Amino acid sequence: MNEHERYLRMALEEGVRGARAGRGGPFGALVVQGDRVLAAACNEVTSRNDPTAHAEIQAIRAACELLGSFQLTDCDVYASCEPCPMCLGALYWARPRAVYFAATRKEAAAAGFDDATIYEELARPLESRSLRIEHLAFEGTNRPFDVWRGLPGRIRY
Amino acid sequence: MNEHERYLRMALEEGVRGARAGRGGPFGALVVQGDRVLAAACNEVTSRNDPTAHAEIQAIRAACELLGSFQLTDCDVYASCEPCPMCLGALYWARPRAVYFAATRKEAAAAGFDDATIYEELARPLESRSLRIEHLAFEGTNRPFDVWRGLPGRIRY
Repeated sequence: MNEHERYLRMALEEGVRGARAGRGGPFGALVVQGDRVLAAACNEVTSRNDPTAHAEIQAIRAACELLGSFQLTDCDVYASCEPCPMCLGALYWARPRAVYFAATRKEAAAAGFDDATIYEELARPLESRSLRIEHLAFEGTNRPFDVWRGLPGRIRY
Repeated sequence: MNEHERYLRMALEEGVRGARAGRGGPFGALVVQGDRVLAAACNEVTSRNDPTAHAEIQAIRAACELLGSFQLTDCDVYASCEPCPMCLGALYWARPRAVYFAATRKEAAAAGFDDATIYEELARPLESRSLRIEHLAFEGTNRPFDVWRGLPGRIRY
């Protein structure tokens, strides 16, 4: 068994443990730096009443807290299942070295989770999405960006 | 000024305030239920060392905590800027009634944020993404789903 499969098996085990303990859906994730597991997390959506508490998000947040950084530089992320668009977006923002996953979005869909549907939704133009999302244009919508550009100490992310 | 613009102006103001206070990027968001603002939040990525602490995520989490629910039923979400893929994914999972936004992903990109790029990345097949993301297939990757299906008390989300 190679290193990637070993970490993925740990992520799968986190998912099993979390589901059995009633913490949320059957998903687990790990953040690894070198040979050190910085964070291991499971889905906690239903136990925490937090729709964003997917395993990957929980693992990213825990690892970043440990590192004291908003970037997962030189880290690898292992997810028991293909990250949903929310988690994949979070991974882009966190910028790890690589992401490895085991089950696929199709398998998640077969187990009753919306991952595949949300991927399809994001690819659609605003007006044909199932979630009503409207752009309202008016004067002043760029004020936060203008203020931002004028801040000498701004920290980019 | 209609109701939607009024709430969007409050979200924009949250973004200005947060950026000026050094809490993070110039983004704000509100969750509103009826005529009650359940949560108002700004981006806190850099001050909290949390790459997932976008304004929408922070507002969703706070409103869900207040409601004691992982769903934003009958709520509207107001975002100072078009939600990035992470936040849009989170909105799909939270299932509010509607989402309204002011600035666009293009304007965010012009101010130096990766939103538009991440949208393009998500539409690409795994092998042509800038973030290395690999699917590893092996026996047992569906075990969490099999365990899940056998749990009588499982809570769907």
